[in-house]
Amino acid sequence: MEPANFEIGPDYPRRLDAKDEMASFRNAFVISDPGLIYMDGNSLGRLTRRAAARLKAAAEVEWGGDLVRGWNNDWYQAPARAGEKIARITGAGPGQVIVCDSTSVNLFKLVIAALSLRPGRERIVSDVLNFPSDLYILQGCIQLLGNCHRLQLVPSEDGIHSDLDALYQALDENTALVTLSHVTFKSGFLYDLEAVTRRAHEAGALVLWDLSHSAGVVPIALDRWGADLAVGCTYKYLNGGPGAPAFLYVRRELQEQARSPIWGWFGQREPFAFGLEYAPAPGMAQWLAGTPPVLSLVAMEAALGLTIEAGLPAIRRKSLLLTSYLVFLIDQVLAPLGFSLGSPRWSEQRGSHVSLRHPEGYRINRALIEEMQVLPDFREPDNIRLGLAPLYTSFSEVWEAVERIQRVVAEERYKTYSAGRLTVT
Amino acid sequence: MEPANFEIGPDYPRRLDAKDEMASFRNAFVISDPGLIYMDGNSLGRLTRRAAARLKAAAEVEWGGDLVRGWNNDWYQAPARAGEKIARITGAGPGQVIVCDSTSVNLFKLVIAALSLRPGRERIVSDVLNFPSDLYILQGCIQLLGNCHRLQLVPSEDGIHSDLDALYQALDENTALVTLSHVTFKSGFLYDLEAVTRRAHEAGALVLWDLSHSAGVVPIALDRWGADLAVGCTYKYLNGGPGAPAFLYVRRELQEQARSPIWGWFGQREPFAFGLEYAPAPGMAQWLAGTPPVLSLVAMEAALGLTIEAGLPAIRRKSLLLTSYLVFLIDQVLAPLGFSLGSPRWSEQRGSHVSLRHPEGYRINRALIEEMQVLPDFREPDNIRLGLAPLYTSFSEVWEAVERIQRVVAEERYKTYSAGRLTVT
Repeated sequence: MEPANFEIGPDYPRRLDAKDEMASFRNAFVISDPGLIYMDGNSLGRLTRRAAARLKAAAEVEWGGDLVRGWNNDWYQAPARAGEKIARITGAGPGQVIVCDSTSVNLFKLVIAALSLRPGRERIVSDVLNFPSDLYILQGCIQLLGNCHRLQLVPSEDGIHSDLDALYQALDENTALVTLSHVTFKSGFLYDLEAVTRRAHEAGALVLWDLSHSAGVVPIALDRWGADLAVGCTYKYLNGGPGAPAFLYVRRELQEQARSPIWGWFGQREPFAFGLEYAPAPGMAQWLAGTPPVLSLVAMEAALGLTIEAGLPAIRRKSLLLTSYLVFLIDQVLAPLGFSLGSPRWSEQRGSHVSLRHPEGYRINRALIEEMQVLPDFREPDNIRLGLAPLYTSFSEVWEAVERIQRVVAEERYKTYSAGRLTVT
Repeated sequence: MEPANFEIGPDYPRRLDAKDEMASFRNAFVISDPGLIYMDGNSLGRLTRRAAARLKAAAEVEWGGDLVRGWNNDWYQAPARAGEKIARITGAGPGQVIVCDSTSVNLFKLVIAALSLRPGRERIVSDVLNFPSDLYILQGCIQLLGNCHRLQLVPSEDGIHSDLDALYQALDENTALVTLSHVTFKSGFLYDLEAVTRRAHEAGALVLWDLSHSAGVVPIALDRWGADLAVGCTYKYLNGGPGAPAFLYVRRELQEQARSPIWGWFGQREPFAFGLEYAPAPGMAQWLAGTPPVLSLVAMEAALGLTIEAGLPAIRRKSLLLTSYLVFLIDQVLAPLGFSLGSPRWSEQRGSHVSLRHPEGYRINRALIEEMQVLPDFREPDNIRLGLAPLYTSFSEVWEAVERIQRVVAEERYKTYSAGRLTVT
């Protein structure tokens, strides 16, 4: 997708919207304030009508009416059932994905399991672009296991792209685990999951992917690409709801050996026998720990169908068009005002959000939210993240957002806001 | 409360209901099927009107309308805010309780932390009455830490009461941690939390209490009784909803030394600085790991006010009257039909559920659910658990439940059901 193919002005995006094969999916969402341009679907996806309906039924009909029978009727199967839906979205065959806990807790479980599968190897490889929570979990695992491992963070020269040469150099017979975000949280850099996995395997290492910023918006083929382990959240492009439970993937061939360190009753072979000795459930159920948060879980599950129905090829086509159009507008309209692109320029290296850097990024972001009806988010030190969710973001919204960003700077509106730091999301 | 004070027949419970100071609290619940006698509030508490309302607002107004701003407006503070409400219910001063994850995951975090505070001591003491998930978590922690610890399970002669002599004998200079359910899941035995904690402290051990079956129904004074650590679920007597997030308590004096092994971004000192090195947040926030399941969390939080408004003294008074009345009826009406009491006879040793044992317990439980409009639950091998929730269980329901249980056996209705084992709850 070449930037030169696009045009400036409001008519062009209207034509793109008119041709958008996915335009009707927007009707599946609750859009209570049509004047608001929501550019943060990469942080919290919008509420779908079906999630709202399922949540109401789960509370009023199931919890309120079925009471504890809700477990037998539906809830008990939800972690595996939702897992199979995510498997379809991430290119995994049956019996390899389950939903439970948070991304961080799932990462913890898989890191501990992975390191025990590579005894004697001390290096864990990640990069400086990874989501900090993932790095914190790794640091905690290293301490818990007696500081026998070492975390090597591959640098990034420009803070946008991964340094693949440095990454590949870190892979040798001492590497136990490579763990990376498939799409990085700040710059939106998209790794070649298959290539990195192959190189890690050549060194005998396991690979654990965090799919939080790619699941539901980038085509993924976990099985075919040889992935070992993966985690991901469901509240971004999968529209699962705030803090909805996360998922994890364990390749079938690893399921016999890999063991969760958190032995809870939902992961027990016969939880309702109430025996005193733990025995892991077969398959993915062993990765469950305690009782899952049903309301958050079933609302999330209800939203997954939309992504499946739209299909990742169409979603990716629109995503590429959206982000390429935005990059074009950044170059044409915003660069003269001091903005620079904080994301890869080459579309094949991008997920579905675009970072826009500006020395006054924090104040510009405040002005956009407070007076311009544009809702992006901000990431230190100077990134305004614009998340483009193909299921509901229109091309006209992209144009309009850029126009308003331009006005905030051209009219110096941001100057009425004090400089500061982000304290909550 | 002496069994001899009660009377047989439907008039007596009606008089108790008329005098019930807590009767009006039932109106705070959604009772969609008034003909159903719900006796499983010890497994899943009923839906409150305020949880239903909060859930609707959280979905439609906050997620749907505020979108990602919901985090700043309300959600980000919910784990600590709900924790403070649970602190009031469990006798903890401010800054010692937080809500996150499941009971099992919280237990995992606290067990790992506790063992590191007692280096060189190898024994973990629990009992055979503890909830199996707690024992599984302990077994997993022992394996994760290299099998340097040993789990000693105190026996129970009758499967109902703890063997306190054996428990106290297990406490010595080699004991690192004592962890028990305050009220045991099957028999409803209530430990003297203060006395056991004192004895464990005399041996230099830490004590971790699971309050799942006592929080909200038994008066608890964590601070005054000297408890070190506690966990508990919120979906039983606290009416938080299926799988609602759990809580954990860390005594203020331990907060500087005790460290969570799961280092997630919600437990980081400055999560939105996105630094690459973990530093624990001060106070209880370090026990948070990943993003919490907001919908389940805020619905739960909304229900807590009811318990606070009713007050634990009044709740306990009614609970004792309910369980004592039920024990009386079991003796008078059900014992002649082959039933025996699976719970302590002395009311001060009971939580708020009563176990009823019968060789045909499984089939009787099936018949009660399928054709008698009574909903208890069953625990292997022969326990029908009857949970009495003072906020909504009436004395007439207790009488009526016993009457229907009596009919199931007297009329041999249970014989049409096949024998079997519980597979889901």
